[in-house]
Amino acid sequence: MRNIKVTIAYDGTNYHGFQEQRGTRLPTIQGVLQQELSRLSKNEIIVTAAGRTDAGVHAKGQVINFVADKWQIPIDRVVPALNSVLPKDICALAAEEVDPFFHARFAAVAKTYKYYIYNDIVPSPFWRLYSYHYKGYLDLEQMQKAAAYLIGEHDFCSFMAAGSPVKSTVRTLYELKLERKDKLIVLSFHGNGFLYNMVRIITGTLIEVGIGKYGPGDLKQILEGRNRKLAGPTAAASGLFLEKVYY
Amino acid sequence: MRNIKVTIAYDGTNYHGFQEQRGTRLPTIQGVLQQELSRLSKNEIIVTAAGRTDAGVHAKGQVINFVADKWQIPIDRVVPALNSVLPKDICALAAEEVDPFFHARFAAVAKTYKYYIYNDIVPSPFWRLYSYHYKGYLDLEQMQKAAAYLIGEHDFCSFMAAGSPVKSTVRTLYELKLERKDKLIVLSFHGNGFLYNMVRIITGTLIEVGIGKYGPGDLKQILEGRNRKLAGPTAAASGLFLEKVYY
Repeated sequence: MRNIKVTIAYDGTNYHGFQEQRGTRLPTIQGVLQQELSRLSKNEIIVTAAGRTDAGVHAKGQVINFVADKWQIPIDRVVPALNSVLPKDICALAAEEVDPFFHARFAAVAKTYKYYIYNDIVPSPFWRLYSYHYKGYLDLEQMQKAAAYLIGEHDFCSFMAAGSPVKSTVRTLYELKLERKDKLIVLSFHGNGFLYNMVRIITGTLIEVGIGKYGPGDLKQILEGRNRKLAGPTAAASGLFLEKVYY
Repeated sequence: MRNIKVTIAYDGTNYHGFQEQRGTRLPTIQGVLQQELSRLSKNEIIVTAAGRTDAGVHAKGQVINFVADKWQIPIDRVVPALNSVLPKDICALAAEEVDPFFHARFAAVAKTYKYYIYNDIVPSPFWRLYSYHYKGYLDLEQMQKAAAYLIGEHDFCSFMAAGSPVKSTVRTLYELKLERKDKLIVLSFHGNGFLYNMVRIITGTLIEVGIGKYGPGDLKQILEGRNRKLAGPTAAASGLFLEKVYY
């Protein structure tokens, strides 16, 4: 029995998220990976991911693992074998054999997500699937001040999609950096874990700050209010990238 | 009667090139633009482009113009009006009224094209539609030496798709720069005009130099041989961008 860890990248545009959906025929990243890995290994393979990204969300460094009974492919051939059968919008980047107890999700100690806002009067055809387009002026300095209130260990329950079943809504955000790069505003989130839709709700709230609807100090009250209704809208899936998973 | 010049960007992936194809039902950039401009102006509009890009080729700064009889839209509303009706993979960037004799193609004095080679062992899902993926080692220095032979005024007939109907195959290449940027090799072509497939055939030939199949000095002979068969293959359309048109 072997436990194999694979780092993958994907364009989430044409998928109904990572997780396989029972009862629907929409393609999922997990479904495609399991199908191709099962074919390659002639065994049924079940894949676990570090982060179960939503429909339309992308990944540059998602990590998966799977346990295989009769795995014949040498570890240094896993990446080329996968890339020869996967659709071009899902790519294997690296593979290694890990100890039998490694679990892509539970073993993760931190993750980095990035969110791209394309901030220009005119849209870009090349960023349409990889960003959220906002035409108007965004006050980056105010957004940065607001973001500072979120750094550290907090109960992020105001920034979680309502009704998500989790034991604890306390997470630690180590870093939340906002930078302007030409026409993009790039938000980089680094934390020990993220609640369901947390990055997108924080981004939606920071956009409201950038517009002037909220002041930076309002973030403190939103956080302390522990109520999803206090925060801003959930930013579009297309702007979100799972950048890296740390073990 | 008014003559309107519009700068546009498009993702060419889903189009059968710029130019409208008689007798086919494949969408073209020109077809979509003419349809939407005709609807907006309630008159039949015929569009002329600076460069008639091929199927799968992209543009960041294509220029078009059209003459309209009863044009009602104020010039500062043309860009938002177009972007509200165009598909998301075609965007209007700027519009201005020009003199009646301006012609997007004949008035152009120079153009810049870029070609992106994604040069890494593993592919990228985000560059799959916007580059040519080459896994192996490419000797950039040799490619740069080869490129130097092409600078200046030459008969580029070896680098033109066979059978193209043009009066003269002499063009001036002002600059041909090759740079490595992380995993990309970016080729920037700046010239007074380009023959049919010229950028892609030069790129295909320079890739052969990067692999070691040709030496840099062979470019001189290929150029002087005036025979398409001497040059390398036509590089994939997906890597090519019409960057800017100069008037």
